[in-house]
Amino acid sequence: MEFKELREKVWLNNMELPKHNLVIYTFGNASAIDRDKGVIGIKPSGVPYEELTPDKIVIIDLDNKIVDGSFNPSSDTKTHLKLYKSFPEIGGIVHTHSTFATSWAQAQKYIPCFGTTHADHLPGAIPCTKPLSKKQIRGDYETETATQIIKLFKKISYQKTPMALVANHGPFTWGETVTKAVYHSVVLESLAKLAYFTCQLNPKAEVIKRDLVEKHFYRKHGENAYYGQG
Amino acid sequence: MEFKELREKVWLNNMELPKHNLVIYTFGNASAIDRDKGVIGIKPSGVPYEELTPDKIVIIDLDNKIVDGSFNPSSDTKTHLKLYKSFPEIGGIVHTHSTFATSWAQAQKYIPCFGTTHADHLPGAIPCTKPLSKKQIRGDYETETATQIIKLFKKISYQKTPMALVANHGPFTWGETVTKAVYHSVVLESLAKLAYFTCQLNPKAEVIKRDLVEKHFYRKHGENAYYGQG
Amino acid sequence: MEFKELREKVWLNNMELPKHNLVIYTFGNASAIDRDKGVIGIKPSGVPYEELTPDKIVIIDLDNKIVDGSFNPSSDTKTHLKLYKSFPEIGGIVHTHSTFATSWAQAQKYIPCFGTTHADHLPGAIPCTKPLSKKQIRGDYETETATQIIKLFKKISYQKTPMALVANHGPFTWGETVTKAVYHSVVLESLAKLAYFTCQLNPKAEVIKRDLVEKHFYRKHGENAYYGQG
Amino acid sequence: MEFKELREKVWLNNMELPKHNLVIYTFGNASAIDRDKGVIGIKPSGVPYEELTPDKIVIIDLDNKIVDGSFNPSSDTKTHLKLYKSFPEIGGIVHTHSTFATSWAQAQKYIPCFGTTHADHLPGAIPCTKPLSKKQIRGDYETETATQIIKLFKKISYQKTPMALVANHGPFTWGETVTKAVYHSVVLESLAKLAYFTCQLNPKAEVIKRDLVEKHFYRKHGENAYYGQG
Repeated sequence: MEFKELREKVWLNNMELPKHNLVIYTFGNASAIDRDKGVIGIKPSGVPYEELTPDKIVIIDLDNKIVDGSFNPSSDTKTHLKLYKSFPEIGGIVHTHSTFATSWAQAQKYIPCFGTTHADHLPGAIPCTKPLSKKQIRGDYETETATQIIKLFKKISYQKTPMALVANHGPFTWGETVTKAVYHSVVLESLAKLAYFTCQLNPKAEVIKRDLVEKHFYRKHGENAYYGQG
Repeated sequence: MEFKELREKVWLNNMELPKHNLVIYTFGNASAIDRDKGVIGIKPSGVPYEELTPDKIVIIDLDNKIVDGSFNPSSDTKTHLKLYKSFPEIGGIVHTHSTFATSWAQAQKYIPCFGTTHADHLPGAIPCTKPLSKKQIRGDYETETATQIIKLFKKISYQKTPMALVANHGPFTWGETVTKAVYHSVVLESLAKLAYFTCQLNPKAEVIKRDLVEKHFYRKHGENAYYGQG
Repeated sequence: MEFKELREKVWLNNMELPKHNLVIYTFGNASAIDRDKGVIGIKPSGVPYEELTPDKIVIIDLDNKIVDGSFNPSSDTKTHLKLYKSFPEIGGIVHTHSTFATSWAQAQKYIPCFGTTHADHLPGAIPCTKPLSKKQIRGDYETETATQIIKLFKKISYQKTPMALVANHGPFTWGETVTKAVYHSVVLESLAKLAYFTCQLNPKAEVIKRDLVEKHFYRKHGENAYYGQG
Repeated sequence: MEFKELREKVWLNNMELPKHNLVIYTFGNASAIDRDKGVIGIKPSGVPYEELTPDKIVIIDLDNKIVDGSFNPSSDTKTHLKLYKSFPEIGGIVHTHSTFATSWAQAQKYIPCFGTTHADHLPGAIPCTKPLSKKQIRGDYETETATQIIKLFKKISYQKTPMALVANHGPFTWGETVTKAVYHSVVLESLAKLAYFTCQLNPKAEVIKRDLVEKHFYRKHGENAYYGQG
């Protein structure tokens, strides 16, 4: 089996998605890039997780041509491709239809930072795209989905905020590795759930102080971090 | 055991309902039709899932006469029968009391299409019947339940929208096979849950653009579909 | 071991409560009466379910004296005793702190009949007591808790409506047997959950037609029932 | 292995947190104090529960110096330390990010006592701190977090109310032992969930009568308790 390591990593991380209750049936997909070899491993389209095996992972190049594998890649492949090209430091991408994150996306609302659980992971709101225009939908739809995401990151850092909601669609997350991208999907669902209940309890709930955001984010991330075994 | 294949298929798919948390105790029922032999296999009435075995599945003909089996068929059998007669392309029907779909039915509200998870499966809202009239309730109630469902499909396609809510009652789904009907019940519950949280987050949430509905529905269904393994 | 059958039945049914996620730790209790012998078997007070064994079930008489067993009976024993005396046809009682039923009780609201899932089990609302008066609380509190429940059943049948909410406290259910009482606790939680989401979706949701209530209730209960295996 | 008993107790109780769905990944932490030896055992920082073993528990003294262990202690260690010093009768502390308790904390609301489930465990509301000031956040943040909690207990008893919410952060609970502290975290999440649904059902829900609070609290706690096996 060629690309054994890449296939197994992508397979293993796809299998984490149903385990964490982020997807059912064939929903969602995870991919990883090997930037040295210029290839991406991605879930095949429409294959249920219980039937997924490492050899079914599709290996494509950066021009979306199948390099190895006998299955069609995920219908969202072009979204992954454009994100890999635009965000040069990421190694993995995950897309799910997880309940709370998708509900915020369907409500066309960004997720405010209401607490330290959130600030531990990213230094501000979880952004939500504008809906795609008719032209974008009728055009190269999956590539345009990435375009909408990328627009959000003109002023914010994709490295520090490794996640976004696509309006009327659902969440995409990424990370240095596909394992970190899966971690971000689980965390996003958890933050989306906390923010949901917070808003129901207090529709006027206020976002947390900038100082508290930075305290929590930077005690876990960056040069002066003192969280973890560093 | 006569009708072995039909019984096992119906039994297996009934057993999927508690597994997917769509029913408890004796709630709900799944059936399949063998149109060549003119028979239907359906869950027996009031038998808990943990006691269900293939030989307890009741085989009836299209006049609601028991062809084989020593149990009474589901009390909802006449609803299934009329749906099979009115929707000639379906091979299976499922009725559950799943939490979110039933809550929408109890609220007497159709489920709007708020996102691509929904549009991936059907090209518009999930319709909800009007409540049955007193006359319908006092008359041939279970047949009239099907009548209310069928009324919804004068202007929409039962093949493309394989599900409906019966007001104050709960969801019915169908499909080419009973396995697909079960799949549609699981998907319906998932869509009902997403739409619930969407409405709570944004009571003025708007349904998605017609173009986006069609993009997602037709990339998975019909001649030009490019989702899946083709 | 004396009262072996009674102890095992009571133990087994208490163990169903955590299995159905109706209780945690030492919350809740189930009891059964043997009217011929004039004894009740009930959960011991403050014993976690994982440590419960048949020999720890306490056997008391109708004067609340311990007949057999080395443990103290549930602190709610007097509530059970008075209900057994007032409702001569019941054989078992269950008290839980299940999430949705308790939330309705804490909101001091009865649960309206919004659908057929509800009408399949009882022919009207699930009643909620008025809060106990200061005098009742300072007096024979646990007996007075039963008094509040009994007041609800002056005009409605405890046989047909085998459940009630105690305001600011939680649900009590009963039945011909303790097994049926447990069944009613599970059903009550399910109905409380459906009614909760129904009210959130439609604060003006209407209760179902009297005819539909009776259709569903009497197709499952009474002389003309045609649900089940008869 | 030194401090074997302390390490194993702390490890075992940390492992209870994911089991009760109170934490995911590396969120949360539990500690215990040995007041005779003047040492505290606490979860190491950033170590996932599935990788936690008794030997990874960090043993520190009351000056926050590592006495034994090769890992860094939890980043919340100073909060634990100050609570141990201020609340001399407690033996264990637990911090989680459990869904409902954290949502109340993010909404900056205390949890009112709506029912007997709550009154069985504590004789009043579950208090919520004020947000930390900028100065507190920029200063000795983790110690100041404890300061905010301690302020709440000027007029209420930390022994009777063994839990608090830190605004925009989450819950802290404690007890005579770390096992009791874990119990209080599970109970808090359960009370937070009941109170959430109660408020949604009835935004004007009233707290329970003082007499009922005292009846339930004192039948389980103190000299005249008659709950349990005495």
